[in-house]
Amino acid sequence: MLRYHARLDKDELRAVGIPAPWRFGLADRVRFAEIDALGHVNNTAYLTWFESFRLPYLEARGVTDYGPDSPRLVLKRASVDYRAEMFNGMDYVVTGRTCAFRRTSFTMEFAVWLPDPAGAVCTATGEAIVVLLNRDAPGRYPIPEAGRRAFTQEDGAEAETP
Amino acid sequence: MLRYHARLDKDELRAVGIPAPWRFGLADRVRFAEIDALGHVNNTAYLTWFESFRLPYLEARGVTDYGPDSPRLVLKRASVDYRAEMFNGMDYVVTGRTCAFRRTSFTMEFAVWLPDPAGAVCTATGEAIVVLLNRDAPGRYPIPEAGRRAFTQEDGAEAETP
Amino acid sequence: MLRYHARLDKDELRAVGIPAPWRFGLADRVRFAEIDALGHVNNTAYLTWFESFRLPYLEARGVTDYGPDSPRLVLKRASVDYRAEMFNGMDYVVTGRTCAFRRTSFTMEFAVWLPDPAGAVCTATGEAIVVLLNRDAPGRYPIPEAGRRAFTQEDGAEAETP
Amino acid sequence: MLRYHARLDKDELRAVGIPAPWRFGLADRVRFAEIDALGHVNNTAYLTWFESFRLPYLEARGVTDYGPDSPRLVLKRASVDYRAEMFNGMDYVVTGRTCAFRRTSFTMEFAVWLPDPAGAVCTATGEAIVVLLNRDAPGRYPIPEAGRRAFTQEDGAEAETP
Repeated sequence: MLRYHARLDKDELRAVGIPAPWRFGLADRVRFAEIDALGHVNNTAYLTWFESFRLPYLEARGVTDYGPDSPRLVLKRASVDYRAEMFNGMDYVVTGRTCAFRRTSFTMEFAVWLPDPAGAVCTATGEAIVVLLNRDAPGRYPIPEAGRRAFTQEDGAEAETP
Repeated sequence: MLRYHARLDKDELRAVGIPAPWRFGLADRVRFAEIDALGHVNNTAYLTWFESFRLPYLEARGVTDYGPDSPRLVLKRASVDYRAEMFNGMDYVVTGRTCAFRRTSFTMEFAVWLPDPAGAVCTATGEAIVVLLNRDAPGRYPIPEAGRRAFTQEDGAEAETP
Repeated sequence: MLRYHARLDKDELRAVGIPAPWRFGLADRVRFAEIDALGHVNNTAYLTWFESFRLPYLEARGVTDYGPDSPRLVLKRASVDYRAEMFNGMDYVVTGRTCAFRRTSFTMEFAVWLPDPAGAVCTATGEAIVVLLNRDAPGRYPIPEAGRRAFTQEDGAEAETP
Repeated sequence: MLRYHARLDKDELRAVGIPAPWRFGLADRVRFAEIDALGHVNNTAYLTWFESFRLPYLEARGVTDYGPDSPRLVLKRASVDYRAEMFNGMDYVVTGRTCAFRRTSFTMEFAVWLPDPAGAVCTATGEAIVVLLNRDAPGRYPIPEAGRRAFTQEDGAEAETP
């Protein structure tokens, strides 16, 4: 049975047919309010799923925007590629990872899956670019060393210059 | 032509077929995102319309939650009566008024209208009870005298003893 | 551990501190998109939770709006009483039951709970009046006998004349 | 004064400081429900604005998904670049155009503006790829000739070979 709202690790993802390189997933179920006049999940819903994913993911990676001295994380770019319609009541898993980072920004990739031990179906993919800003001052905030290490070791992210 | 997002006064409301006692209205248009899987405006959209109405209305009545010493306005109860379905692209007017107030709370009434000089159609009515709290301390905040006066004079609201 | 998106029965509800007469619950978690500018769960979110509850609940009670000959269920009235603020990431349980029914309509009650074996906290209650209409013809549709029986036996609902 | 919910043409856009090549705009105002826990317009709201723009725009270009023989328009890709925060009550104009088309798909560009006769501020840009499908059969639907002509003549769109 799918565990909702809890971090799904590499083994749990593989068990529901989600392939490498995904190692961090969160499961939920489509709700009625996400269905639009066309009868399928509205295009904007996927962005809210990626948004809901980011907070626990970044906390796990040590890059969070909580606390007075922490950076402010700002979304600079978001995109979604729609591959298959989704409908009310469907169970889905959102997977995400950081694929690249620079000194003060990083790029995340996302995918949405219909879990299936015989091979999950990918219904959408997405990307987001996040920038770290100083909370109470102008200028950018460097990604903490723990975050850079986690991006590299946990996600296999590439460190880009600059 | 309907003026959107601007306060419509008594005369403008009567001109689009909205009867007494309504004296404060705001016009807008149904958007695609408010339509649900059943093809009509979702039941929750009406609450967001009443919410959008409250801020400019309360500012006009001198009872706002802006500023460091101002009260914090908290919704204690909300209700909607649905009378007719609404669809994408429809122009509508939300009217609202305070019908009664006590020392630290007041009751608002709302209605949603399809404007028509020959007689607007009411598609929904609603009610909300709002309580004023101290911003940074426990306890309730009395409605400012200017607000009580505005509720009485502008809306014909009844002063209830607690 | 709380089971999300699955029907929680009487025993499971009591185990997380939710008292009688509630016998049907669904658990979920507050998501970021439900938090508004005031930092708490927006007032409209509760209505979407009740809406999400209704479909599986009515299916369990044998009163659904699926299928070509089935009735069309229309919400005539909805209300929410707000008792305590809710915040991002909170686990909650929505409970619902039918408290009364007539020939072609019924009244539901809802409550939202923060589960706690020592006694769940109720953050909101609500009510909804639902009317059954003929799908492709004017007029109302009588509640199927199985539904009346389920409302009475499962929920202890009262049969009101007319 | 800004005209909301009505098509703004080239001259009206220039008058509020929006430059070429934009020739089709729609004005609206940020509403409370679009503000998120961070106090600014939520990242997903921009996608709903582009979605609301598409229907009247495509109707004006003769490429609509209404009617039994018309194509079904499906979003394949959407992206947003965020340039400046937006806040409750702000007036904005969404502009959109088709920049390129193939036989059965087209690419739209969007921008969001804070109108200002001295030079509007662009707060976001976006892109969408739309595919035309047969409504009740597999396979794709060619863009009607009137649509190709309108994309070219009205928007200066480029016809790409597949």
